[in-house]
Formats: sequence, C-alpha cells, structure tokens
Amino acid sequence: MRTIEWKNDTVLTVDQTRLPHKLVYLKLRNCRDVALAIRTMKIRGAPLIGAAAAYGLALTASRSKASTKEEFLKQIQDSVRLLKRTRPTGVNLFWAVDRIVKRIGEASDSSVDAWKDLIVREAQNIADEDVEINRRIGERGSKLISSGDAILTHCNAGALATVDYGTALGVVRAAWEQGKKISVIATETRPKLQGSRLTAYELRTMGIPFVLITDNMVGYVMSKRLVNCVITGADRIVKDAVINKIGTYSIAVLAREHHIPFYAAAPLSTFDLSHGTKDITIEERSSEEITRIGSKIIAPKGTKTLNPAFDVTPMRYVTAIICEKGVFTPERLKQLL
Amino acid sequence: MRTIEWKNDTVLTVDQTRLPHKLVYLKLRNCRDVALAIRTMKIRGAPLIGAAAAYGLALTASRSKASTKEEFLKQIQDSVRLLKRTRPTGVNLFWAVDRIVKRIGEASDSSVDAWKDLIVREAQNIADEDVEINRRIGERGSKLISSGDAILTHCNAGALATVDYGTALGVVRAAWEQGKKISVIATETRPKLQGSRLTAYELRTMGIPFVLITDNMVGYVMSKRLVNCVITGADRIVKDAVINKIGTYSIAVLAREHHIPFYAAAPLSTFDLSHGTKDITIEERSSEEITRIGSKIIAPKGTKTLNPAFDVTPMRYVTAIICEKGVFTPERLKQLL
Repeated sequence: MRTIEWKNDTVLTVDQTRLPHKLVYLKLRNCRDVALAIRTMKIRGAPLIGAAAAYGLALTASRSKASTKEEFLKQIQDSVRLLKRTRPTGVNLFWAVDRIVKRIGEASDSSVDAWKDLIVREAQNIADEDVEINRRIGERGSKLISSGDAILTHCNAGALATVDYGTALGVVRAAWEQGKKISVIATETRPKLQGSRLTAYELRTMGIPFVLITDNMVGYVMSKRLVNCVITGADRIVKDAVINKIGTYSIAVLAREHHIPFYAAAPLSTFDLSHGTKDITIEERSSEEITRIGSKIIAPKGTKTLNPAFDVTPMRYVTAIICEKGVFTPERLKQLL
Repeated sequence: MRTIEWKNDTVLTVDQTRLPHKLVYLKLRNCRDVALAIRTMKIRGAPLIGAAAAYGLALTASRSKASTKEEFLKQIQDSVRLLKRTRPTGVNLFWAVDRIVKRIGEASDSSVDAWKDLIVREAQNIADEDVEINRRIGERGSKLISSGDAILTHCNAGALATVDYGTALGVVRAAWEQGKKISVIATETRPKLQGSRLTAYELRTMGIPFVLITDNMVGYVMSKRLVNCVITGADRIVKDAVINKIGTYSIAVLAREHHIPFYAAAPLSTFDLSHGTKDITIEERSSEEITRIGSKIIAPKGTKTLNPAFDVTPMRYVTAIICEKGVFTPERLKQLL
C-alpha cells in the first residue's frame, strides 16, 4: 500500500510515530484530522505533507453540505488556513494547497458538485504524480551511484516521506533495483529518530544493507572513508540554500571537508527559487522532543533547549540537486525558473 | 561530596547511569566491582576512571590476606590486568595504574603492610591531586573566556568526569566564579546522553545558564553565531590529535569552518605525547547503545550499527589545549615532553 490513500471518502495513512514497532494505519475523516496528524508528525516528509494537505481539502470538499458556492468556498478557505498553519518551513504543503485553490479559480463557473469532483480528482493527481516523479528522481539520481558505493543519508526521505518510492531513498532504491551493490549509512536523526525508526525500517524491508549511526558519528565515518556520497531529501529549496531536517547543514560541511559529494533529492514542488534563505521561517518545536525520548525523561526538569526542526545549507556546500528533470548543480538551478 | 571517595576500606562513587533522576552512591568493595563499574560506565570520564582504577588497586591491597610478598604482588598484578582490560582508549587509567605499580617497584624492600599503606596513600594522592589540577586547569582556561561568551561543550567533562571540579566544565565554572556572565550550549551526546543527563545536571546544580541541543544542531548554532568557543575534555592527547568522545571531531571541523576556537581541557595525565593517532585503539561498544535508549527499543530488530565510543580530532582543528601548566597551542605541546 502507498503511505497515503483515498478510500471511501476517507484518507488512510501510516501513523509514522508508531514505526518501527507497529505498522498502523490512521483513518482521517476530515481536514482537522489531517492538520493534526501533520502537526504531530504522524504524517511527515515534505512530499507526503503536500499530498496529505491536498487530501485534507478533498475531505472538506467531499463531505461538505454547503448549499451555496459562497458557503463551500468559505469552508475550503478555512481548511486552507488550517493547513497552512501546521508547519511553516516545508513548501510542498503550500504548493499543493495553492494548486488546488488555483484549479477552483480556473473553474469559477462550475457548480459545487463539479468543484467537489475537481478537488478530489486534483488531490488524487497530486498523489499519483508524486509516485511517478519519485521514480524519475530515482532514475536520474541513480546515475550518480556506482556499485560499491556507500551512501550516507539523514532523516527519512523514503517511501514513508512521500506517497511512495521516496526521494533520497528513491535514488538508493533505483540504484539497488539496477543491481548495483550498494550500502547505506543512516543517521538516527535526533530528536524524532526518523533515521532509526523509518529509514532503518524501509531499508530492512527492501533488503538493502545498511548501518545505523548516531548523528555525531558523521565526521568519524567520513574520516574513515566509509562514505562515498551523501544524499538527503529537502523540505524547501530556495535560490541560495537547501532547507532540510536539522543536522543536514552539519553533514554538508563535513562532506565538503572530506571531499565527499553532497546531493539533495526532491521534486520540483519542493523548489521555491523566487525566495532566498532570509525569507524562510525555521520551525521551532517543543522542548520535550529533546528532553524526552518517547515518554522517557532524559534531562533534568526545567532544562531549556533549542529545537529548530530544520537548518539551512547554503548552496556552496551542495554538489548538485536531483529532481525529476535531472541533476542540477547550484549554478544550473536558474534553468528551472 | 566528591564523585569518588575512599571510606572505611571501601570506595563510594556516584552511579552515573542513574543521573539525572537519582543521585545514587555505589559502594565498591573490591577491584572487580571497580572494573565492572568502569566497563558499564557507572564510572566514566577519563580523569575519574584514572582515580577509580587507583582506588581499585587500593581495594585489592587493603583487603589482601596475602602472607607473602610474592602472593601480594600476584594479586596486584591480576588487578592491574583486570583494570587495563576495561576500556582501551582513555589513557588516565593506564597512567594511574602504572604510577602505583612504579611506587611499589621503588619500595621493593618494603613489607606487605607497608606496601598496602603505600598503595592506599598513592590512590588518595591521585584523587586529591586531580581536584587540585582541575582547579588549576579552570584558572588557566578561564583567561580564554570573556563575559558574554557562550561556550559549547560536548559530553560531560565536569565534576562527574573527575574526582571534583571538572576539566572543560572546570574552565566554565572558574569563569563563572570570577563573575563572568557566561552561558553554555550542551550537546546531548548520543548514544549515552552524558550531555543531557550529566552536564545538564551539573550546570543546573551550579546555576550556570545553559541550553541543551541534540548533537546534529552544532552546525546550526554555530551558523547563527550563538557560540563563541568550544571547550571539550579529552580521553587521550597524542602528539598529532585529541581523542575524545564520539562527535568531538565533527564539532571541531564545524568550529574551524565557522572561525570559532576549539579547546580541549585535560590534566597532563591524559597526555600521551610519545604516541600518535595510529597507535590508538578506538573502543567499539555494543549495538544496543544505539538501537535502545534505556530499555526502549528505537530501531528495527537486527539493525546493524557502528558504535565507536571516541573519535580522533587532528591537531590542525585544535586551537589550543588547556592543562594545569597553561594553555598550549599544538605547536607548543613539545615543551611538555
């Protein structure tokens, strides 16, 4: 099954907070359910959040009892606002929601029922396209991978971060499916442990050899020449930087120091090339993500933390970006504008 | 109370695996207890391990029922071997044990009873000197710290890593006691969380302001100019590198990239300047330290890991080393030989 699916006017999706122990599907019945699942990271991964937000609007549409177009539009606008308040840094959510709003605008003469169909269909399209785009990212990126390579990845940019197949792990997967003998070094990715919980789960399921390390071992494995390249996902690619899970910037600096190529893999819906680093809000999350692991308290009571969910990797540390249109060095990104 | 004390022919020490929740003292009755506490990291921190090993020999000596000098020496040699097998990377343990063995050799004409007194006294000296040396490290190092500085530290190199006062945190503490308005950024230090459990506990107890971050936030806080210098401890300082808790090397590379000075603070008993990096064994610890946190499993069953307990920071990343004799740039270290 895909990570997210539309079924009988509800949305089914994997509860990512329960992995790797249990594969539990959540049934989301309305847009509030979707927004809450995004905020609590039951749904996470920029491309998946995009598809989920689109499905959130589809739920609002398909379940609407609005009798007038004005009333219907008001319900959609409320859902748009709700979704846009969930997580500020990744761009795919904004892209997906805006795409649907634009379709409604383009069909301003339609009836409420026609709008309902259009919104549900567009959400489905976004989800279907995501899978196809990831396969293309995988195919394009796999050319950078040779048999024998060990690829370091951070966080989870696999099937679980997308509708299916994955971005960074999609590249790994494509290379593996081509018969290349590769292996992965996965960082555990504190505080939410997407590496140990999700990437390890996916790699194990696919049978791709990997080792798990703590985030602070990246310099060590690079100095021991255990890594041939780094591939991460991205939450937003602006003209001067890649914004991705906290820790990505440290890895990119270490990669450059060790002359190891650093790639980010993401669909064009993650690109926001008309903006730069200074336009971006980095989400700050709760202290408890740092002072607890699950329900286990690991720091003294009252400990203050910093908890930025993302960091900014300036393009000078990025070897290239892999998207569905190919592999682009930072200098060539302009061609995508 | 000190982190370790000799009391009524037993050794009392803080069980560091129970912090920050409970301050529990362990009573160690023989050298095997000491060796086990070191191996399981109930006792940790290079200078503390040195003092503990000395006390381990003191326990063997004071409780010996040997009737001949040969028998007594055999018991001491067995304890020396036992202690030297616990943890291979830090050098203070070897230094402390060898110092006691040397004293016995210098007093080869003494009786068994005189040897017993000598060994217990020498262990006490090692512990007492450690506190005094740390105060001197603090005083020397504090000159590098200005009011307003934010100091990033890794792992725990505080009172809990030593007999008392601390090395890296000793420098912080000395600056604080001088009335400098400073703050600390503490890395949590996976896998064993010495930062969130021990450094946070000590800083909180002393009332020094600090924030806790995950290890992968180091690049972020440096890029935001939230850090003025890095001070870590050391487990062994060889002629070409500082060997310290895993993650130190990554931090040192990031510090240089951001033009932030990187200091290691350690007593001369941590120095091993006749050796180089290639002579050193890096301890590899169990997978379960990575795949579990406490008893909580966080990765899929059968996940393979790397778990080097230490890494190697070449001297080109080290601004200076702080010891009881002063602050030494790598070029000046030769003067200590």
